[in-house]
Amino acid sequence: MQRYFVPSTGWHKNEVILTGEDVHHITKVMRMKEDDEVLCCDPEGHVALCKIQELSPSEVTCSIVSWKDENHELPAQVTIVQGLPKGDKMELVIQKGTELGTHSFIPFEAERSIVKWDHKKAKKKVDRYQKIAKEASEQSHRNLVPEVKEIHSLHEIMDIGKEYDWALFAYEEEAKTDTYRSLQEVIPNIKPSQKVLLVIGPEGGFSEKEVEKLKQSNFNSVRLGPRILRTETAHAYFLSALSFQLEELG
Amino acid sequence: MQRYFVPSTGWHKNEVILTGEDVHHITKVMRMKEDDEVLCCDPEGHVALCKIQELSPSEVTCSIVSWKDENHELPAQVTIVQGLPKGDKMELVIQKGTELGTHSFIPFEAERSIVKWDHKKAKKKVDRYQKIAKEASEQSHRNLVPEVKEIHSLHEIMDIGKEYDWALFAYEEEAKTDTYRSLQEVIPNIKPSQKVLLVIGPEGGFSEKEVEKLKQSNFNSVRLGPRILRTETAHAYFLSALSFQLEELG
Repeated sequence: MQRYFVPSTGWHKNEVILTGEDVHHITKVMRMKEDDEVLCCDPEGHVALCKIQELSPSEVTCSIVSWKDENHELPAQVTIVQGLPKGDKMELVIQKGTELGTHSFIPFEAERSIVKWDHKKAKKKVDRYQKIAKEASEQSHRNLVPEVKEIHSLHEIMDIGKEYDWALFAYEEEAKTDTYRSLQEVIPNIKPSQKVLLVIGPEGGFSEKEVEKLKQSNFNSVRLGPRILRTETAHAYFLSALSFQLEELG
Repeated sequence: MQRYFVPSTGWHKNEVILTGEDVHHITKVMRMKEDDEVLCCDPEGHVALCKIQELSPSEVTCSIVSWKDENHELPAQVTIVQGLPKGDKMELVIQKGTELGTHSFIPFEAERSIVKWDHKKAKKKVDRYQKIAKEASEQSHRNLVPEVKEIHSLHEIMDIGKEYDWALFAYEEEAKTDTYRSLQEVIPNIKPSQKVLLVIGPEGGFSEKEVEKLKQSNFNSVRLGPRILRTETAHAYFLSALSFQLEELG
């Protein structure tokens, strides 16, 4: 069944009112009518089975039939910090990372990022990524839409690392130094309630300076298997392994 | 260091002779000169450190300096059978699947595949995918290039399923029936020497008939986490979880 993420302003007593692009989707793409059913997710991740009562060009009013007891959220909250990659690879990371359960994304302007964001256009880009995350959340039956945050500098990332239970960076060349943690020490020890930050370098990897600074800020480096993954593949390895651990082995 | 996959015809006593596109890559893209070093992989996956002796427009002759003791191959041999997806998603599966350790790929014309391959163009497509697999193998430091096989029908896949230790299909709706295997029964029990076949449906999923036939042929269905993955994401989940199990936990 089609699912929609409805902001808090759309929730009333026994009614949900959908507006904006969701109206277009319901009326034009899905061609739904009165009495058709949809799933509506509230901002806390609760899911309601709803029945369409009224359709207008600007809003769709639904009645809440029942609340569903379903949760498809990855138990641990993973934030993917993605070094700005080339071309449209960030879109791929947002889409796939959403399917695989990412809690939030932070674009990161790394030293070796070839793409530099024009700060005037940055908001537009984030809006576009947020839309991709919403669509991927609908398709993958998530309860929540991951937040795509503003572009961060290394210093900002070092700062927020303190708020996480696990602050990691993907750095295969780092194996066997004192800040290195093998994935078998990390993944099986992440608890469902914990917060994980994973920093991934851009195509050229991290600079030595960035590695030093991350280490100084108590980030641990991890290896994602023995093969060299492209920047846009790294998040998928980590999230899949963690999902397997927490949601399939669990 | 740059690596090249050299067919058996290129290997001589203490020399390796590279031809074709590798010559272009060495001379024009990498702009290498005499005495520069490259890695050459033979068809069995052995890796030799080589030194360039002579460059001509048609071939590059290298001497073997030493054999390296490295193996980045996923221990179990995984064949990904991918239901033909829309657009250029097959290329994405080949590239990412190669990075993540796939042993071979089989394109599969599923009932709900919207794309149908013109059998005249099929060879061209397979050649193109094989090239993507080679490039991804070089970039990800693999010892072997996965083989991209010709397009298969359901019956051919049912047939070859018998040759594998594990014949699986990704089918989330199948949970809790008698052919369903939870991933925790599968992944931790795959041995490094074993062969795994994983069939993935196209965008619309498998038809009921396909599911029935796969079951009759002793394929087991698996769920790849609780979220619904797009067809081009499913292989990555399975391969990452298996790599984590065999190469990081192992």
